[in-house]
Amino acid sequence: MKALVAGGAGFIGSHLIDALLMEGHEVVCIDNFFIGTEENIAHLKGNPHFKFYRQDLTQLEPVLKIFQAEQVDYVFHLAANSDIQASAQSPLIEYKNTYSTTFILLECMRLCAVKKLFFASTSAVYGEQMGVQVSEEAVALEPISYYGGAKLGSEGIISSFAYMNDMNALVFRFPNVIGPRLTHGVIFDFVKRLKENPSHLRILGDGQQSKPYLYVLDLVNAIMQFKDTPKGVTLYNVGVETQTSVTRIAQIVCEKMGLTGIPFEYTGGRGGWKGDVPVFAYNLEKIHTAGWHASMTSDEAVAKTVEAVL
Amino acid sequence: MKALVAGGAGFIGSHLIDALLMEGHEVVCIDNFFIGTEENIAHLKGNPHFKFYRQDLTQLEPVLKIFQAEQVDYVFHLAANSDIQASAQSPLIEYKNTYSTTFILLECMRLCAVKKLFFASTSAVYGEQMGVQVSEEAVALEPISYYGGAKLGSEGIISSFAYMNDMNALVFRFPNVIGPRLTHGVIFDFVKRLKENPSHLRILGDGQQSKPYLYVLDLVNAIMQFKDTPKGVTLYNVGVETQTSVTRIAQIVCEKMGLTGIPFEYTGGRGGWKGDVPVFAYNLEKIHTAGWHASMTSDEAVAKTVEAVL
Repeated sequence: MKALVAGGAGFIGSHLIDALLMEGHEVVCIDNFFIGTEENIAHLKGNPHFKFYRQDLTQLEPVLKIFQAEQVDYVFHLAANSDIQASAQSPLIEYKNTYSTTFILLECMRLCAVKKLFFASTSAVYGEQMGVQVSEEAVALEPISYYGGAKLGSEGIISSFAYMNDMNALVFRFPNVIGPRLTHGVIFDFVKRLKENPSHLRILGDGQQSKPYLYVLDLVNAIMQFKDTPKGVTLYNVGVETQTSVTRIAQIVCEKMGLTGIPFEYTGGRGGWKGDVPVFAYNLEKIHTAGWHASMTSDEAVAKTVEAVL
Repeated sequence: MKALVAGGAGFIGSHLIDALLMEGHEVVCIDNFFIGTEENIAHLKGNPHFKFYRQDLTQLEPVLKIFQAEQVDYVFHLAANSDIQASAQSPLIEYKNTYSTTFILLECMRLCAVKKLFFASTSAVYGEQMGVQVSEEAVALEPISYYGGAKLGSEGIISSFAYMNDMNALVFRFPNVIGPRLTHGVIFDFVKRLKENPSHLRILGDGQQSKPYLYVLDLVNAIMQFKDTPKGVTLYNVGVETQTSVTRIAQIVCEKMGLTGIPFEYTGGRGGWKGDVPVFAYNLEKIHTAGWHASMTSDEAVAKTVEAVL
């Protein structure tokens, strides 16, 4: 098939392109390098099965031209602002890069009769549900970040486009994804700061904030495994059962950097920034039953990622 | 207080302005006359407590200027495309008029520290849930119309803005609202067609499609009653327990127009257009318990509306 990967020069998108090419598909990539980088897709230059468009996805006309020219069979939509902390100061980033990209892509799919969609959603649609193992049928969807709000909005409009145009949409809600080509987040941050100054490490909160970290190739495998879905919207939580605390991440980073006895300075309090969900657990029964399981635990994913970004 | 009514020249918005003025508030109205009309607010001309801006709500800059100039305390957001049938052919209408208006208003509220919001949401966020009495905690939000999708998206982003900026948001999900100043929908359509040609009446589907019709002044009373909410999002289904079938509407219209023996010609099938939800029932326990109840049944609301639009 011919696949369009929106946000394909990003962290997850570029890994997905590798997997699609490996399986023998043609890939068209659209990215505006807002967060994605030329470096992430540099290894694909000259590949006859790969085509790249540098294009913002918030304008209908130019995106529609690409759809008309390329006649793709499947849209993998991973274009979004993935830096929640950045958009906390500037919510319009989410309006443009997370929500509008979805609407424009769906409208192009409608106009060009493209029927298959993968959408990268997020655990952030659930909001703050402390101590609960959230399933796909969670009763309350109350995002607390602009990012989560814009992703929930995207899911809503995907539901309507899927119904109105007989589309097949696979929606994955996943938590923090990490691995090679990661560009921001706590692991990246710790490595960077310890490289600059290995005398101590400042940690937001009490270090007990704990989240499941999913290894990027595990996520990509799940996308590849479930990409052929029936009509309508098929929704999965995708993640790992285990979690890693911020202090544990700091320990793993120090270990991998060969640093010992680094004092951790905790800022105290609830930790993180406003809009961040400090404790989060997923109910993964649905995707486990369907036959997928992450190959790495959260700690293993962290360790592997530290090695890659060092 | 000083209230901003977005979409205030519309059907519901203009009735809300009347109620706010009656209660002694200052009202600033913004409308672009996309669906709203000058006629709906003509009676307010010259009222020293009323101010009107003709302005599209999808552009941040000019809307922000109004916020800065007016320093309002409360935003009542009723700006949206309310013609679901029209947007079925052109989903970008919902992107602009239903979703983007919400984001721009929220961003202006954030920038100007306005803390109180009323949002007009819809039963359409629930999608198609045949025969179920949908409560506010419905497990599945699967809108099937672009309108419902854009409204669900608006709810999502309201949740995040409320959390991030300590706003108080009142969200009402309501079904078909009818009454004086109605501009489209089945009642309006039947009256218009029978005026043009009283020899017969063509009815989409089998006429059994049944919905609760809420009288606009009942809705406005509920908004006025619940407008002071606590921090965060307070969500209510607002409606009537009774329903009116399309055939019953046709009968009421004929009765009020003094027409007898008009043959009804049914097109047959499921009825309505794609994206329309033919049968819908609400669970209204939450708002009833909170002390509000519609004063009119669905049939009474239909009859009263026919009288008004004749």
